[in-house]
Amino acid sequence: MADETAISGTTEESIRGRAAVDKASAVRAPEDRDFVEQLGSGLAPSQLAEDEATLTVYSADQGPLLERHLPLAVVWAESVQDVQHIVRTCSAHRVPIVARGAGTGVSGGAHATRGCIVLSLERMDRILDLNPDDETAVVEPGVINAELNAAAAAHGLMYAPDPASYKMSTIGGNVATNAGGLRCAKYGVTRDSVLALDVVMADGSLLHTGHQTFKGVAGYDLTALMVGSEGTLGIVVGVTVRLKYLPHEVHTIAAFYQDFRSAAAGVLAVGKARVQPAIMELLDNGTLEQLDALHGSDLQKRGKSLLLIQTDGFGAAAEAAVVRQVLADGGATVTMEASAEAEMLVELRRNSRGVEVDDEFRVGEDIAVPRSKLVEFVASLEAMAVRHRVRLKVVAHAGDGNLHPTFWMDRVDDATDADALVRLNAALDESIQVGLEMGGTITGEHGVGQYKLRWLGLEQPEPVRELQRRIKELFDPAGILNPGKAI
Amino acid sequence: MADETAISGTTEESIRGRAAVDKASAVRAPEDRDFVEQLGSGLAPSQLAEDEATLTVYSADQGPLLERHLPLAVVWAESVQDVQHIVRTCSAHRVPIVARGAGTGVSGGAHATRGCIVLSLERMDRILDLNPDDETAVVEPGVINAELNAAAAAHGLMYAPDPASYKMSTIGGNVATNAGGLRCAKYGVTRDSVLALDVVMADGSLLHTGHQTFKGVAGYDLTALMVGSEGTLGIVVGVTVRLKYLPHEVHTIAAFYQDFRSAAAGVLAVGKARVQPAIMELLDNGTLEQLDALHGSDLQKRGKSLLLIQTDGFGAAAEAAVVRQVLADGGATVTMEASAEAEMLVELRRNSRGVEVDDEFRVGEDIAVPRSKLVEFVASLEAMAVRHRVRLKVVAHAGDGNLHPTFWMDRVDDATDADALVRLNAALDESIQVGLEMGGTITGEHGVGQYKLRWLGLEQPEPVRELQRRIKELFDPAGILNPGKAI
Repeated sequence: MADETAISGTTEESIRGRAAVDKASAVRAPEDRDFVEQLGSGLAPSQLAEDEATLTVYSADQGPLLERHLPLAVVWAESVQDVQHIVRTCSAHRVPIVARGAGTGVSGGAHATRGCIVLSLERMDRILDLNPDDETAVVEPGVINAELNAAAAAHGLMYAPDPASYKMSTIGGNVATNAGGLRCAKYGVTRDSVLALDVVMADGSLLHTGHQTFKGVAGYDLTALMVGSEGTLGIVVGVTVRLKYLPHEVHTIAAFYQDFRSAAAGVLAVGKARVQPAIMELLDNGTLEQLDALHGSDLQKRGKSLLLIQTDGFGAAAEAAVVRQVLADGGATVTMEASAEAEMLVELRRNSRGVEVDDEFRVGEDIAVPRSKLVEFVASLEAMAVRHRVRLKVVAHAGDGNLHPTFWMDRVDDATDADALVRLNAALDESIQVGLEMGGTITGEHGVGQYKLRWLGLEQPEPVRELQRRIKELFDPAGILNPGKAI
Repeated sequence: MADETAISGTTEESIRGRAAVDKASAVRAPEDRDFVEQLGSGLAPSQLAEDEATLTVYSADQGPLLERHLPLAVVWAESVQDVQHIVRTCSAHRVPIVARGAGTGVSGGAHATRGCIVLSLERMDRILDLNPDDETAVVEPGVINAELNAAAAAHGLMYAPDPASYKMSTIGGNVATNAGGLRCAKYGVTRDSVLALDVVMADGSLLHTGHQTFKGVAGYDLTALMVGSEGTLGIVVGVTVRLKYLPHEVHTIAAFYQDFRSAAAGVLAVGKARVQPAIMELLDNGTLEQLDALHGSDLQKRGKSLLLIQTDGFGAAAEAAVVRQVLADGGATVTMEASAEAEMLVELRRNSRGVEVDDEFRVGEDIAVPRSKLVEFVASLEAMAVRHRVRLKVVAHAGDGNLHPTFWMDRVDDATDADALVRLNAALDESIQVGLEMGGTITGEHGVGQYKLRWLGLEQPEPVRELQRRIKELFDPAGILNPGKAI
């Protein structure tokens, strides 16, 4: 369960990913031996690993690590029956199960916990059905988001949710975190595309939720309850999704501003013009600086902030014309029509994730605020960065009010590490508090996982949390499904 | 709880709305007297009624009535505190609460049950906030859908879900049933527009679910769980919704076909052209006949089926051009550009609800099937109508695969009533079974209420139903919130 006092208790290790391996898990108790044997008895040898290298790889996702635990084993399910066997075996032995897809999560939702096994669903990667007339697909959880999109594109269709990890992450993982992405303001988040789920419950039974049709209101919406529950209520083994139409046409606009405030005002101006872009990404000066450093570009010379907008569909050209006009009126330097550069910038933004999750002196967030608070919130972030003597860069899915601010520092020598990390985390905690005061949420799309439990109590009062704990108990009385995550 | 044997047990009374008043409820027990006094003690005199005329009016919504029960009292809450007082009093006395908005539901979700009170939320009708920059609104549950839309339209915004009852029904009622409407295929159903809820729980406590932002994934999606739960998990007293942009431009196309099959093929052809209409309504010959009879029009002379399509947004004209071409290629007679007649037809369709819910010899449904099954399903319906010697008309939100077939008969003399009703219901039950066999659902947008409980077990297997019952128990241990509905 969450420890709400953890804000002050954050340790250097927890932030830096230098967590000591939990040695206890390396010494195997006889009952664990029995358990692993029983687990393996229902699987092929290639479906279970116990070597330390594999256990280590599968012990964490891309989220900050508080304490590394090696799982008792890693198992790869290749069928629904495999998952049922694994869950039943774990249930009998009360062994926690951490399910994962590609492990690209950034909140620690797939971090191994003490004495657990890690259940990888990456081998269940078949697109079972893709019906262009129904505009639906049925997939196993391990299907990569981009692969489903490639298959759908052959029919002029797309699977809309597009997290930055879309080339690596799985639909199952997207479902577990209710993943967002760049185009959700227009096309919705994962929950809005999921029609039905096959779920292996904590007792090993298989439950089918939802409906194959676009609409359906029979009974409680168990599908929506499962989406975003981070593997704590059941193991998703099948996903029926609605597909949408690949846009007829796409127009891309890059607008440079001399300050962030004007760029954020541009977001609201596009809204006031009642144009709904497919993508509306806001990049601050810190981000432009990083992109220049990485790619040798000269973005910073052209402005202090960049607003990247894509319109799509049959109205894309007309919408782009309105957007250009509105942004120019607001003082932006706007790229010309069909700008290859603008498209390249969107690609850079879309694929910038790799460089963002890989630094010990960088703490990132996923706050969403009401759209009208964008300017005020970023101004607060800038003041925090100054006060805590850290650097800041901000990328926002501006159409959603979803910001990914990152506080960071250049790598410093060991002697000052502790101080640096304290300052980074003080800025981070303050950003969360200010975001919440503005009516925001601690996580727009990444999920709570393990890492954000320390803030969840700031957003959700105890009765809401208690209700969620009781739902968890109802679904998983023994508490074996990804304990200590999400709620 | 549902009685799955009810299919064969349907009585004449149940169908014809001639149900006898439950006399038991007219004789007031002393403990009921005490309860009503206590209920009234916290309310103004104008907030409670016990006269038989009022009790009768509030004893049912527009759904078929199985057995009429008069409530002990009708109370009108005017504040969240009122609702809390009412729920606490009912909780203390274990009196069931049937919450309702405008009572326009057609599944009996707001029918009074034995010994209940009816809690009307129609007086909680304030739009508390409408923020054009955030593109959100906060409303009390009694706000009429059309009034929220009127307020939003002043800012170039709209509240997207548009059930046929939109001029009468309340947002609270829309939330309770997860209402759909004409434009959901493009803009989503109620759930997709609801960001947060204030809910009075069964113990009288006030819970706030969700987030003020477009995106938010902290904890389980309690908001989605509440939406569509028909007042069985809590009483919704506040709703935060996302607004969308009023379309820049709307084009309307009417396409007449010589048979229903070709019209349904037109729906798929528009899909294949990857055009997403805002509205796509399919009307069969029976419906055209009815419209002609009501309005003196000559629709039947022009075709045996009508496909009504609206495209909207900046691409409306270009989309309409594609749609016209595709439909003409499929053999349709297509109206010219900017047809006033086509717009009039959409208005007729949109406001046709009044004539559909008001006949004792008419049984309507709300089945959704995968889009590709539209033709096959309607062919089956036609065969059923012939076999059971009843008449049929079908209107479909074709973009969603959501059909409203109606089996009906001309009014017959009393001697043959029983046989007529048996035939109508046999056709109805068969239509449900065939719809389910095609991968459909028993309710696309109306809700299960009380009336459709008899079919729920055909769609949802026992473990799914049992899980829902346990969720219900968790939220409402004493079972006072709209018992015998929804699940």
